[in-house]
Amino acid sequence: MQDKICAKKRKKICVPPLFIVKLKIMNTRRIYLDHSSTTYLDPRVKAVMEPYWIEKFGNASSIYEEGREAKKAISDARLKVASVLNARPDEIVFIAGGTESDNLAIFGAARKIGKGHIITTKIEHHAVLHAFEKLVKEGFEADYVDVDKDGIVDLKQFKAALKPETVLVSIMYANNEIGTVQPITEISKIIRNFRNSKHLAAFPLLHTDAVQAPSYLDLNVDKLGVDLLTLNASKIYGPKGIGCLYVKRGIKLEPLIYGGGQESGLRSGTENIPAIAGFAEALELAQKERENESERLKKIRDYFIEQILKKIPDTVLNGSQENRLPNNVNVSFLNVEGESIVLYLDAKGVSCSTGSACNSASLEPSHVIRALKRSHEYANGSVRFTTGKITKKSDIDYVLKVLPDIVKKLRGISALS
Amino acid sequence: MQDKICAKKRKKICVPPLFIVKLKIMNTRRIYLDHSSTTYLDPRVKAVMEPYWIEKFGNASSIYEEGREAKKAISDARLKVASVLNARPDEIVFIAGGTESDNLAIFGAARKIGKGHIITTKIEHHAVLHAFEKLVKEGFEADYVDVDKDGIVDLKQFKAALKPETVLVSIMYANNEIGTVQPITEISKIIRNFRNSKHLAAFPLLHTDAVQAPSYLDLNVDKLGVDLLTLNASKIYGPKGIGCLYVKRGIKLEPLIYGGGQESGLRSGTENIPAIAGFAEALELAQKERENESERLKKIRDYFIEQILKKIPDTVLNGSQENRLPNNVNVSFLNVEGESIVLYLDAKGVSCSTGSACNSASLEPSHVIRALKRSHEYANGSVRFTTGKITKKSDIDYVLKVLPDIVKKLRGISALS
Repeated sequence: MQDKICAKKRKKICVPPLFIVKLKIMNTRRIYLDHSSTTYLDPRVKAVMEPYWIEKFGNASSIYEEGREAKKAISDARLKVASVLNARPDEIVFIAGGTESDNLAIFGAARKIGKGHIITTKIEHHAVLHAFEKLVKEGFEADYVDVDKDGIVDLKQFKAALKPETVLVSIMYANNEIGTVQPITEISKIIRNFRNSKHLAAFPLLHTDAVQAPSYLDLNVDKLGVDLLTLNASKIYGPKGIGCLYVKRGIKLEPLIYGGGQESGLRSGTENIPAIAGFAEALELAQKERENESERLKKIRDYFIEQILKKIPDTVLNGSQENRLPNNVNVSFLNVEGESIVLYLDAKGVSCSTGSACNSASLEPSHVIRALKRSHEYANGSVRFTTGKITKKSDIDYVLKVLPDIVKKLRGISALS
Repeated sequence: MQDKICAKKRKKICVPPLFIVKLKIMNTRRIYLDHSSTTYLDPRVKAVMEPYWIEKFGNASSIYEEGREAKKAISDARLKVASVLNARPDEIVFIAGGTESDNLAIFGAARKIGKGHIITTKIEHHAVLHAFEKLVKEGFEADYVDVDKDGIVDLKQFKAALKPETVLVSIMYANNEIGTVQPITEISKIIRNFRNSKHLAAFPLLHTDAVQAPSYLDLNVDKLGVDLLTLNASKIYGPKGIGCLYVKRGIKLEPLIYGGGQESGLRSGTENIPAIAGFAEALELAQKERENESERLKKIRDYFIEQILKKIPDTVLNGSQENRLPNNVNVSFLNVEGESIVLYLDAKGVSCSTGSACNSASLEPSHVIRALKRSHEYANGSVRFTTGKITKKSDIDYVLKVLPDIVKKLRGISALS
């Protein structure tokens, strides 16, 4: 056995990394359809991280050789990330994940000003919504813009919500639950026009949580017109506990964490070199492969949606089918608990969720599904399938084979009770 | 070559992990004497982290198999950490590093109350001192207690500083620059007596930054009598970007980061499973090996101190020799810049620092050395050597061979200028 592994190692370069993952994950005979919750680490990313565990473990703040080596690893990663975003390296702040990045953007921008009006939407991630709630307690006034029945932000309502006192707008790029893609470029134009019409120099700032975007969407910050943008490695086949905040040059934020002054004073704490190097690699790979992968997964997605709606009566798609991430299928089944479906599918070897992973413990329909204003009978029955690099059509065919019976069975139980 | 590696892999269990590290690090022919800044990842810790990259990559908030697996990994790690600290698992909050942990303790405790008086010392890490400065801006009153010439907190001054309005005391367990060990048990007794005498139920709380402690000191929170205790994996041969805060049951903190409500709402964000598992393993190993390692390094330390003071005139030890971490040697050379010595030693293949890594960019003597009230001629010439698992006596002998000439040379330059 060991000999076989060694033989494989010798040919390491010839073995496609996807094969290694398939070998490792597929061995469990499970079908993982929850890539928006978290992803496995891409072996190519793992390889980039490898030297920084033992050989190159230095502290980037040290002035001797090991420190300079670590510092260079960070600079290289920063350059990589900046180049993907069409940004400058000094506009990239490495930070310990998406939630912290959202928090730094929102608390950082708002608290720097101290008071004012802030706008977000009803379908944001809790990292945004709960930060807004906290700011309201601190004296800020907040507006939560509706989405239409397709899960797209109501731009008319958004325009009407803007005030001269508005200091920050936070609208996500792509929704983590229903996969709808928001018109960020259009939103940034509205903000620019508003600024100009009111002769406001810099405010309101526009932040976007782009955590779900890198594998499928364009991340050019100039085209998007955003001031702050959040990314997270653990949703793009990178390591957990690392992400970044793009901070447009000139924008001042109040830090959340104080200490050694790393990351231009915006995120103190010894830099997590292996994670930073891995994140940059994961982001570069995501953007390199996004067009092919989008095309491939769109086909699987549309086939899945078509078949699921055809095979299971009283089922609806949550969110627009067009303005939607290629990897997201979120459907609601009438008169059945999404939670139960997830557990039955789990028993059949399929991993999916009712919404975001953060909601899993709650039995309430998610705030995103509620924002679509579905009737209660549908709202409780939402299930999210999110495909990824290892997903094949045959995986979907398996789900389509087992799911109708599960729903039928659960509806039977529900009818009896 | 590959065959040789494979042959080695086959005997993996028989190869002591230290050997792997020595092979990897020693190949660089460098002598690393900056373990208090950061440590390499122990191969045994790396092995514990390994399954969580690809095979077991689930999100701990998910309810299906991969999620439950991830959740179990966190519970196991929490139990491991709690058992080292003699604490309950629900008292351990995993967090992205030592700085964030210090910040959560200090901001979290103080902001939960909203106002009051806080006490720390003049030799704390910047993660503590800068958090205090921020709290002062928010309206808190702060006292910074002196240390004596040996770098030990002045207990008389500390006692006198306590007031009925004092909500928090933060005093580090072992100093990162001069290695002095503070009498935490005594300090907690003073606080308990003060609470009793004033009929105060819970305040002031006692926080200790124990980041430098686990490899050498007892971490029993009951014996220490602390309410909050900070640990960091990256100083104990664990991964970077992870640590914990011990929060005694019943103590309420205000979170720094808001979102999905992970870690009992105290640290939102998808849990970093490989890092959490690695941290717990690193902590357990540190405590298991601390007695032998302390004894071994104490001998090296005392030899180093004795020889350095003997071989280089006008040199003083910074901080007490007795109440000192076994791995810390911090000396000041009269009339020479510590920075220059570090760079010259770097050129000779030795890695050390002038103080904490966070200060490296500054040419000012560190606040810790200043707190010892050394004359200016000595304060600028401080150099810190911190040994670790890979340090042998022969490494020290090499330093003792090259250092006297370096100091002589630099003093010559300094005399000329």
